[in-house]
Amino acid sequence: MKSSVHDLKNLAIPKIEDPRGNLAVIENNVVPFEIKRVYYLFDVPSGSTRGGHAHKTLSQFIVALSGSFDVIVKDGLDQKRFSLNNPSKGLLITPGIWRELENFSSGSVCLVIASEVYDEDDYIRDFEDFTNYNRVERS
Amino acid sequence: MKSSVHDLKNLAIPKIEDPRGNLAVIENNVVPFEIKRVYYLFDVPSGSTRGGHAHKTLSQFIVALSGSFDVIVKDGLDQKRFSLNNPSKGLLITPGIWRELENFSSGSVCLVIASEVYDEDDYIRDFEDFTNYNRVERS
Repeated sequence: MKSSVHDLKNLAIPKIEDPRGNLAVIENNVVPFEIKRVYYLFDVPSGSTRGGHAHKTLSQFIVALSGSFDVIVKDGLDQKRFSLNNPSKGLLITPGIWRELENFSSGSVCLVIASEVYDEDDYIRDFEDFTNYNRVERS
Repeated sequence: MKSSVHDLKNLAIPKIEDPRGNLAVIENNVVPFEIKRVYYLFDVPSGSTRGGHAHKTLSQFIVALSGSFDVIVKDGLDQKRFSLNNPSKGLLITPGIWRELENFSSGSVCLVIASEVYDEDDYIRDFEDFTNYNRVERS
């Protein structure tokens, strides 16, 4: 049973609002996995494109901590665009979904919480390989 | 053996530099613990103060993902100020250290990676309790 882009959604992140600033918390009641790795993109020139890969087993939770950007997700059949611009919402990307990031605003910060440590074997970096992989998994 | 503010230091975060933007990665080769919780402060009015507590067992890794702020750390004997303004460096705060955050720049984002899930019993929220706690632990 592979992921469909139609199952993906923006999840609310619990937030403690305070006049001294807001605090948002991600633990495993927000993301359905143990957090193994945290990374972030910064100093992204506006208009850059990133991503262009899928994962076989890793899940990711993506948050626009500052500024905004778009995440285009593809499952080999359909595609969908999520515009992220809110630090209290995150997009959970399940395995078997191709993702591309684009349309970064100036000064944006993209936070990614991942379910696994880095493993090059978990990446599918070629879109044709990806559609073949998903076709086999679906059949 | 309790923490001293003189043992605290800014740690470099591995960074992949790229013309499309920089990517920094925190996993357990950077922080000396399993990541249990990720939280961040945002929409902090410039000049706000946050923090004002210590932890008995939790360790934290603090990064200025955007903008800048200062972290004042106290061990009951001495204090030290760290000015954070670089997404590729983070301050590791070990247990038994009082911390206050202040001098936030407009639009700053403070990322915190923690070694434990939330547990109110792990907090020391009164500075006198803290100095007493550390005195007992030192003796």
